[in-house]
Amino acid sequence: MAEKVRVGVIGVGRIGKIHIENLCYGVPNAEVAAVADINVNEAKRWAGKFGITNVANDPMAIITDENIDAVLICSPTDLHAQQIIAAADAGKHIFCEKPIANDIVKTKKALAAVRKAKVKLQLGFNRRFDPNFQKIHTLVREGALGEVHSIKITSRDPAPPPISYVKASGGIFMDMTIHDFDMARYLAGSEVTEVYAVGSVLIEPAIAEVGDYDSAVVVLKFANQAVCVIDNSRKAVYGYDQRVEVFGQKGSATAYNKKPTDVEISTEQGVYTDKPLYFFLERYMDSFRMELCDFITAVTSNEEPPVTGEDGLHALYIAKAAAMSAGENRPVSIEEIEQSALTP
Amino acid sequence: MAEKVRVGVIGVGRIGKIHIENLCYGVPNAEVAAVADINVNEAKRWAGKFGITNVANDPMAIITDENIDAVLICSPTDLHAQQIIAAADAGKHIFCEKPIANDIVKTKKALAAVRKAKVKLQLGFNRRFDPNFQKIHTLVREGALGEVHSIKITSRDPAPPPISYVKASGGIFMDMTIHDFDMARYLAGSEVTEVYAVGSVLIEPAIAEVGDYDSAVVVLKFANQAVCVIDNSRKAVYGYDQRVEVFGQKGSATAYNKKPTDVEISTEQGVYTDKPLYFFLERYMDSFRMELCDFITAVTSNEEPPVTGEDGLHALYIAKAAAMSAGENRPVSIEEIEQSALTP
Amino acid sequence: MAEKVRVGVIGVGRIGKIHIENLCYGVPNAEVAAVADINVNEAKRWAGKFGITNVANDPMAIITDENIDAVLICSPTDLHAQQIIAAADAGKHIFCEKPIANDIVKTKKALAAVRKAKVKLQLGFNRRFDPNFQKIHTLVREGALGEVHSIKITSRDPAPPPISYVKASGGIFMDMTIHDFDMARYLAGSEVTEVYAVGSVLIEPAIAEVGDYDSAVVVLKFANQAVCVIDNSRKAVYGYDQRVEVFGQKGSATAYNKKPTDVEISTEQGVYTDKPLYFFLERYMDSFRMELCDFITAVTSNEEPPVTGEDGLHALYIAKAAAMSAGENRPVSIEEIEQSALTP
Amino acid sequence: MAEKVRVGVIGVGRIGKIHIENLCYGVPNAEVAAVADINVNEAKRWAGKFGITNVANDPMAIITDENIDAVLICSPTDLHAQQIIAAADAGKHIFCEKPIANDIVKTKKALAAVRKAKVKLQLGFNRRFDPNFQKIHTLVREGALGEVHSIKITSRDPAPPPISYVKASGGIFMDMTIHDFDMARYLAGSEVTEVYAVGSVLIEPAIAEVGDYDSAVVVLKFANQAVCVIDNSRKAVYGYDQRVEVFGQKGSATAYNKKPTDVEISTEQGVYTDKPLYFFLERYMDSFRMELCDFITAVTSNEEPPVTGEDGLHALYIAKAAAMSAGENRPVSIEEIEQSALTP
Repeated sequence: MAEKVRVGVIGVGRIGKIHIENLCYGVPNAEVAAVADINVNEAKRWAGKFGITNVANDPMAIITDENIDAVLICSPTDLHAQQIIAAADAGKHIFCEKPIANDIVKTKKALAAVRKAKVKLQLGFNRRFDPNFQKIHTLVREGALGEVHSIKITSRDPAPPPISYVKASGGIFMDMTIHDFDMARYLAGSEVTEVYAVGSVLIEPAIAEVGDYDSAVVVLKFANQAVCVIDNSRKAVYGYDQRVEVFGQKGSATAYNKKPTDVEISTEQGVYTDKPLYFFLERYMDSFRMELCDFITAVTSNEEPPVTGEDGLHALYIAKAAAMSAGENRPVSIEEIEQSALTP
Repeated sequence: MAEKVRVGVIGVGRIGKIHIENLCYGVPNAEVAAVADINVNEAKRWAGKFGITNVANDPMAIITDENIDAVLICSPTDLHAQQIIAAADAGKHIFCEKPIANDIVKTKKALAAVRKAKVKLQLGFNRRFDPNFQKIHTLVREGALGEVHSIKITSRDPAPPPISYVKASGGIFMDMTIHDFDMARYLAGSEVTEVYAVGSVLIEPAIAEVGDYDSAVVVLKFANQAVCVIDNSRKAVYGYDQRVEVFGQKGSATAYNKKPTDVEISTEQGVYTDKPLYFFLERYMDSFRMELCDFITAVTSNEEPPVTGEDGLHALYIAKAAAMSAGENRPVSIEEIEQSALTP
Repeated sequence: MAEKVRVGVIGVGRIGKIHIENLCYGVPNAEVAAVADINVNEAKRWAGKFGITNVANDPMAIITDENIDAVLICSPTDLHAQQIIAAADAGKHIFCEKPIANDIVKTKKALAAVRKAKVKLQLGFNRRFDPNFQKIHTLVREGALGEVHSIKITSRDPAPPPISYVKASGGIFMDMTIHDFDMARYLAGSEVTEVYAVGSVLIEPAIAEVGDYDSAVVVLKFANQAVCVIDNSRKAVYGYDQRVEVFGQKGSATAYNKKPTDVEISTEQGVYTDKPLYFFLERYMDSFRMELCDFITAVTSNEEPPVTGEDGLHALYIAKAAAMSAGENRPVSIEEIEQSALTP
Repeated sequence: MAEKVRVGVIGVGRIGKIHIENLCYGVPNAEVAAVADINVNEAKRWAGKFGITNVANDPMAIITDENIDAVLICSPTDLHAQQIIAAADAGKHIFCEKPIANDIVKTKKALAAVRKAKVKLQLGFNRRFDPNFQKIHTLVREGALGEVHSIKITSRDPAPPPISYVKASGGIFMDMTIHDFDMARYLAGSEVTEVYAVGSVLIEPAIAEVGDYDSAVVVLKFANQAVCVIDNSRKAVYGYDQRVEVFGQKGSATAYNKKPTDVEISTEQGVYTDKPLYFFLERYMDSFRMELCDFITAVTSNEEPPVTGEDGLHALYIAKAAAMSAGENRPVSIEEIEQSALTP
């Protein structure tokens, strides 16, 4: 491999643009060698800002490019699995936005191709790279909290997505809670064995019409007896609410929301501080850069990436179990989901 | 009735002593006319501090005393129901520590006696009178948070009780979570319809031997579609953890722990504040006085007490449902519990 | 001395009433044997609530009463010195509201009488007994912060007093900052040597007309080289602002304001908490009880009271120096004030 | 002017490097056309990372380069004034690190050259661009706090600089408090009229030997009657302490320290959070980028820069007054300093 990892970026939408900027300005040992998007003009415009001249409209131009060491897959979800397979077959290392697919069988096929090709695959569960959650993860791993007894994850969006998005996303557990499922696994140091979920529509009636929920509570049981509770809402009027609490034998650690400033105002009406940072772009900006740094390091030092395809598969199992639990009003074991995926 | 409500206190243990002191020093329009305890010497010692001379060893001496307007029942739980019935029959107003009984049928009989005698009965769910939780209750009732979507209650003790207590208490849901069940009902403004509970033994193996749990997570569904999550632990090394969060359409309100001081210390090691107030006596001291003030007011102004016997019965239903849910690993409806109590 | 210290209370105004209630309900080993006030009817009304029957209109009735061990002087300031002298001559221990007098010579005469009679004299600098400030004092005394380098005291009232009060009070440094001067000495563990003060009228022009300030900043230099900065305002629209910060070689400790609840509310408008407790009665309620407990203990165990007449004299020196400094726009040494008081 | 402002950077030390990186990655409409440093190898190394090839060892190569629109002066302080004059004479816009000079006459000469050449000059008081302080500034400017009554600035370093730095820096008021003087002016919306300062050596005796202080308290009076108190220490063991509080007629706003994470940990020992971000590079990273964005905007839109040479001169007056006040133990007016600078 050359001195720098030559990266090709597939998909220059919102997240693709952020990744390109980070690779150019904030990730050591990487260079963006090419980008591809069906909207080739917009891709050229963005690439031009960073002096990137190799712009294609066909992702295969990148995947088959011998000068490219690694690809970033930022295309729509339904293309992820096939592009992973193609890239793996071409011997490229892969960073892919989550999820690999909304389907277990498809996901497994992609993982098999990666294993066979012995390339790296990192999944875009960026929240693991957030400084707040990393600190808690470190505390858990180093034993500062003792054995983990319970985890609480609060995850609320500032506003519901367009109904068109909800229709295609696979549902709240697949598009929103899936980040929390991964966070739970990341923090617990143990695998989820059973899921109980409650879903309701309290905010946007149109969401009920497409068969989804806008509010949810999920309880996860882990193999080590820890329990995690997740609460989700599509709409918190005060902004993006992203908190985590881990309680263990030796103590508790809580990550509060990040805010634009640390200013407190006292008036006749009360004592005020800022609302949380508005949404994921503001809240998790650091994490988007850090996940790429770690991906490039995994490639250059030939190590296991910090978030693997298996992590994606496990989160998918949990999401499937949650959807089934909410629909059937009963706890659903992960084993049941795994088994059902084996049945054609 | 005389100018002041003449109160007889039955049971001069830890909580009885607190009530006597509060009635003498902090509750307007009340006077302690008599106390009774089988340990009559200790009762005399405490009563003497407040100039109370009428001390008996038999509670019936109080219940049948024509000079007494109201009784405080602070005896062991298994005596509550029969003393409520005797007091009601004697026309006394009643303040009773929770629970009325660990048994639904017994509880209903006590409530029937109260209804028949048309006396007041207030149950000792003191946490409703805590300033933090009262503020949140007021916000909900006044609509400041809009429709309630979810409630989170964290309730952790600093240390597990003696195993002898656990054996007799009826289990964690009956002796500990029951306060949280009442809090959930108090804050939700709606009735619980279904319960899902997870119980585990993570702290004290001896607790498993007597068939109880030391850690629990409970999910409550309400008639108005709100969902409440309660997490309990018998042992938080940092002290008594008593927090509540209500999330609604218009915002969220969180009650944090109360601490001895508001001092923050910055050293080379970090930035420190106090641990929470150690346990319920420190944390809820105000609420023990306030519940009696409101009881006395209910008596003097002939109003419904702020916590009724029916509130006790509902909390008992939820506790029974939680125990069944944890044991059978399935959601249990309150209706199922109510029905089963009707079957002889 | 009898089992309990028999206390006579002189002056049944706002603070006298609080002291009577605390002595009856919250101070062990004390009993209120008599009270006196020129408004004898109001004194009888309040005393009656606590079963106190010995009510006089002449304070000398208390001072000369052989059954009385100690007097609480809660009369107007201009009577303090003469009542201290009379009580000392009669062999009574004395708790006196601050200040002893606005005049140094008068103050010294009262202290001389106390010394001669060998009775206890405690001055009502109640803030020393506030749990926040006590914690910081303990940290300093135990060396947890190392050598003290600087102290910051913020002390702002919610609203200015009536202009009639300002006229008679001796000025902002004498009636308001004097508490902060005592706090500074209490925390520094060293004596003030020099004072620089700035006074201005930013809130209430009528205060300028009577020759006083409504806003002030004072810098104190201590013998141990520490420096204290005090900032005062007669009007903080958000309520009573009472904070202290001590910075030393090994760290810093800050006491924030106390609030009615620990509830945080998040809405579309922002994240807000309670305003501070409104004023000194709410904020310092605990301290009023604790100072009497310690006074009674000093009497019963024949120890030096925790706040002495000398403490009052030192605070008075500082207040005089501050007033001179603000008027003449120069640093003024305590020595200069002490010397000038010796000159007839 | 070309599409982008072509910037030459003079001095590639610690701050010069940060500015180069920001100009390349974080400042729109700017490009680094050349850099100069006597250590030309290190300059080449750094420039190379950003593809900058024009590297000189003589700053005049930049100042006289016709392709350059603006210079960033990041050289040692004693070169600032002459480089400003040379750059102004060459018609370049100038961004200069603070201070222009430690000498008033020299400073005025530089400002005169800038005025004559009608170029822009922005001074590197970067803290004005910190989001915390900007928010408070906005609140003041918009009147949300009403008339400003008092300002408190806490500014403590984590560790004292090397004694060699202290010797050359002009003293604590010139190298450290000068940032706070500018902050005070920025927030007050009024000019300082008088200064009272206390300096002491409590941390590092060697600092006394070179005639400087390591601890200071400064009181500033403003034309609008507001008062500002600044407290400085060369060593806060818990890290870089940078707080500001503005108190006014309608309320108060406080900027607390920024911390690496928002995680709170509760253990048997206490409840603790992170220490503040360690020092100015961590704490003020955003502000270094923002000040350059605004400088480039001032150049491209031909507007007054947000921090002018006059701002630098005023801060210098205050620093001189503070040094004199601390030395002579008396308040010193700014007018006195201005007058004395006119006397040869």
